[in-house]
Amino acid sequence: MKTSLYLFAAVAAFALSSAPRADAQETPLWDLYNDVFAKAKYIDLTHAFEPVQPVWPGFGQAKFKPAIAGNDLGDYASVGDEFTYEDHGFIATAYELTTDQYGTQLDPPAHWNEYGATISDLPASYTLRPLVVINISDKVATDEGYHLQVADVEAWESEHGRIPRGSVVFVRSDWHKRWDEVDRFAQKPFPGVGLEALKFLHLERGIMLHGHEPLDTDTTPTLEGEYWLMHNDFAQAEGVANLDQVPEKGALVAIGFAKPLGGAGGYARYVAIAPPDWPFGVTVSEAPGAPLPRYSRPLRRDENGVLRPSDG
Amino acid sequence: MKTSLYLFAAVAAFALSSAPRADAQETPLWDLYNDVFAKAKYIDLTHAFEPVQPVWPGFGQAKFKPAIAGNDLGDYASVGDEFTYEDHGFIATAYELTTDQYGTQLDPPAHWNEYGATISDLPASYTLRPLVVINISDKVATDEGYHLQVADVEAWESEHGRIPRGSVVFVRSDWHKRWDEVDRFAQKPFPGVGLEALKFLHLERGIMLHGHEPLDTDTTPTLEGEYWLMHNDFAQAEGVANLDQVPEKGALVAIGFAKPLGGAGGYARYVAIAPPDWPFGVTVSEAPGAPLPRYSRPLRRDENGVLRPSDG
Repeated sequence: MKTSLYLFAAVAAFALSSAPRADAQETPLWDLYNDVFAKAKYIDLTHAFEPVQPVWPGFGQAKFKPAIAGNDLGDYASVGDEFTYEDHGFIATAYELTTDQYGTQLDPPAHWNEYGATISDLPASYTLRPLVVINISDKVATDEGYHLQVADVEAWESEHGRIPRGSVVFVRSDWHKRWDEVDRFAQKPFPGVGLEALKFLHLERGIMLHGHEPLDTDTTPTLEGEYWLMHNDFAQAEGVANLDQVPEKGALVAIGFAKPLGGAGGYARYVAIAPPDWPFGVTVSEAPGAPLPRYSRPLRRDENGVLRPSDG
Repeated sequence: MKTSLYLFAAVAAFALSSAPRADAQETPLWDLYNDVFAKAKYIDLTHAFEPVQPVWPGFGQAKFKPAIAGNDLGDYASVGDEFTYEDHGFIATAYELTTDQYGTQLDPPAHWNEYGATISDLPASYTLRPLVVINISDKVATDEGYHLQVADVEAWESEHGRIPRGSVVFVRSDWHKRWDEVDRFAQKPFPGVGLEALKFLHLERGIMLHGHEPLDTDTTPTLEGEYWLMHNDFAQAEGVANLDQVPEKGALVAIGFAKPLGGAGGYARYVAIAPPDWPFGVTVSEAPGAPLPRYSRPLRRDENGVLRPSDG
């Protein structure tokens, strides 16, 4: 895809607005926010996780439940009472999570490597990076088991230039569109990332992180790609979504996750940040975040414990 | 604190580097990353959560456990087997989380408001914002129960200028330094955020989110501040850490969290991004994120189920 046209306006506005102003010396990052990030398009690359969804068959499903009083609280609640909007003014959710390999993930090396970094060891600098999207969806459309090859990476570089050191490379297969096929999603064949491509990206290009839409890196019997990554101290992203809505070149990605101490996996949220005239995503003015939209019907738990607006 | 000196170099470098270049029209956000974010300082504002830590007495503690096989997997594992590095090549962690009000949090309105947005309703634009830090640690040092007042906000503005619309305002009390006082941390007195200050920040300044270091917004019997926020469709951050390491003005904050569908709370990770010559934080070159550091002793679960490097 040609990126020069839609980006031209963005860079022009950016170059113009970054000229010195009265207050610029005080807050360059805030000026940058006003000039660029307040106008950018944000695309959520995350599946919301829930009790009924695809998961590796070796694990079980998560359970969502109402939080209950863990102690006697005088007249307010007795141990075991469910907290309710009506009686207590608030609710909370309790989770039984059979695994940290669930939903959109960030796997740290400790998942496979007993000397590896855990999720809470990831440094603060693991937060905002250039995002490369390599598109193999055409090949996957005719071969569901297609795996990313070095030639695909080279083809991306022929079109877009060298992959930046320290970047995040997500492999677009469009497999994420089948997330609702709970029994099919994690079964073979599914698209993968070949071991040689992983080695090329990490050893020849020095990327920080690769990610893919399925829940495993490849379909080899030994999961050779994940084995290699984890034993060489590289993390990986799994279950990434919506890569069909992100430019192949020129976006950033914000990396967020829950931070349990010593966690062997990460319940993650990835958000792509694209130039203002990118056709997908929301802007800050479209979705300012405060006040947040309100439901017209009250939230109640469904049969799986998930809070949803109740039926009329 | 004077910010002009240490920021001068940053803005000068930024203004210089944002001049047009050969490839600038193609990737303005990547150029921005190279010129600014690759050199910035990143400060993690998150407590890693664990089974033994402060929590509101009405809830219980979390449990961390090894993941077990949820199904029979032929010769590889039988249902109920614990996955181990030795026998299966990997481990994973299972969690019993009695509440989503645990550790460093992002509370969506649904926590108290049955019509309110849940954690999975937060838009993608809820990701990167200007960060204001209002410091009341001096007052808290002499009065542990001090609550942020409108006058404190006005004092901040007298020194630094108007609080930006859409920003994140974190209240520095240094209470986070007492996180290890498990029995004391969530007990009164603790520092709070007064209701009038919350109204001023949201209604007069239009901020997106406020946050504080304790696990509750205030110490009133009705929790009037949290009530007002949630019923007016504002989220809040709780259990924020390390605000003593962040500039009062001029940083950004990246907002990440686990994304359970319809979640009433958020296990969050906040990371501040400060100019390159800010004295705290790590840079991308200091902590590139790949390969990640390796432990010299193998990870084993402690008595609470937390993976830690084993004793020599």
